[in-house]
Amino acid sequence: MDFTETSAEQAVVDSFAATTDPRLKEILAAVTRHLHALVREVRPTMAEWEQAIEFLTDVGHTCDATRQEFVLLSDVFGVSMLVETLNDSDGGTEATVLGPFHLTESPQRELGDSIDLLGTGTPCVITGIVRATDGTPLPGASVDIWQCTEDGFYDVQQPDRQPPGNGRGRFRTDGDGKFWFRTVVPSHYPIPADGPVGRLLNATGRHPYRPAHVHVIAEAAGHHSLTTHMFVADSPYLDSDAVFAVKRSLITEFADRGSHREAHFDIRLTPDGK
Amino acid sequence: MDFTETSAEQAVVDSFAATTDPRLKEILAAVTRHLHALVREVRPTMAEWEQAIEFLTDVGHTCDATRQEFVLLSDVFGVSMLVETLNDSDGGTEATVLGPFHLTESPQRELGDSIDLLGTGTPCVITGIVRATDGTPLPGASVDIWQCTEDGFYDVQQPDRQPPGNGRGRFRTDGDGKFWFRTVVPSHYPIPADGPVGRLLNATGRHPYRPAHVHVIAEAAGHHSLTTHMFVADSPYLDSDAVFAVKRSLITEFADRGSHREAHFDIRLTPDGK
Repeated sequence: MDFTETSAEQAVVDSFAATTDPRLKEILAAVTRHLHALVREVRPTMAEWEQAIEFLTDVGHTCDATRQEFVLLSDVFGVSMLVETLNDSDGGTEATVLGPFHLTESPQRELGDSIDLLGTGTPCVITGIVRATDGTPLPGASVDIWQCTEDGFYDVQQPDRQPPGNGRGRFRTDGDGKFWFRTVVPSHYPIPADGPVGRLLNATGRHPYRPAHVHVIAEAAGHHSLTTHMFVADSPYLDSDAVFAVKRSLITEFADRGSHREAHFDIRLTPDGK
Repeated sequence: MDFTETSAEQAVVDSFAATTDPRLKEILAAVTRHLHALVREVRPTMAEWEQAIEFLTDVGHTCDATRQEFVLLSDVFGVSMLVETLNDSDGGTEATVLGPFHLTESPQRELGDSIDLLGTGTPCVITGIVRATDGTPLPGASVDIWQCTEDGFYDVQQPDRQPPGNGRGRFRTDGDGKFWFRTVVPSHYPIPADGPVGRLLNATGRHPYRPAHVHVIAEAAGHHSLTTHMFVADSPYLDSDAVFAVKRSLITEFADRGSHREAHFDIRLTPDGK
């Protein structure tokens, strides 16, 4: 039978019939159905289809060892946040996006160490406890932290100005599940806007800014891994994050103590199997 | 309001509200709705989302001046063919996919010239007439031809073995709308299968072959441009083209004349405004 507007979707789904991995087969059938439904609805011209191909190619060519433009694209369409939300474990601290800057291993540091290797910016002490959802403290949990400088850049974005590992640290909670470290208050910042995703935001009147935040991945044996942020409570853009990642429960007071600021962020991890 | 599974789609559509180009706004809203519906249906794990990001990045990195992996990806999901079908003009010769090998300008040639610069393969004469849908011949129409060799490779795939322009030629129809040129019979061939799209086909038990064909873009003033193929009638894979591009009306007899083969392909172009 000829390939027509109406027969096309099923013909392509059928072409994947011999896929041995059942999950892959299910995903490819769903991708085919939604992609064809999109195309039938939008009815792109050939020129529009070519623009789409060029855009995706440009996104791919913008990706390198320190830049992940497809993650950015997923972010600005709210897809990263949607996937995080769908995978969020009940009862624990809410999850949010990984973002495109978790590109290097954070250096292992001791509790109390500073992750600020530059000495510029507003000093800050961050403390917290990792607990299970029933309140039990989790000693020896891993808390992986990464953040930008007061100027809004991650180390990987400024290899000439920042030593590798600036703003990054992996800590182990103590016997009471506690962690603490020194840093500077991060700034709000624009996602990288000099590539195709930036051009998309520009063409659609969207700003590229994210509210100030500190990234966290918390992991403990026997519990779901958690990827989240602590958001700085007085930051601009909390209500219009370019990547839709703000949850009210994650907004954290960075209290002014004169010489420095202090924030406290408690983390609850969901036990495996829940 | 927090970003949730149910509020996410509308939040992202709303973020594009300030888009000044109404068509771009419409497309982005549709992309957002279908993409979120897909993600809500499939409920990817974080690892699956990361695999998708890596796959798309790999597709992007595989694209270069002579390789268009995103076109291949669009092809194997039947999207290229669907877009062609949606844009097909009523009454004219049926359209089919552009494919990823129209990467260089075809050299202008004289009627009767050979596009085969190698001298290997089964010689072939191709003749045809370009007409309007009412049967009026169209003198001075452009007929852009490209095809692979008898071994199944395009010039751009074998820069060391084929001179640039081998298998390619742009012709002008004569005063009666006729065109004719010499070539060799093209072979069926696999789409490039050494990249991420090839791995996808492999994982899904799909073969990468396309039936033998000669590509055509026909253009005449006052008429819709036509992108199509003539398919070689005795080729394998006519019923399982990896890119879903076969239309029965495009299957063309390549008649055996002993010393050579002969094919005749008439083209009907739809007048503008129809």
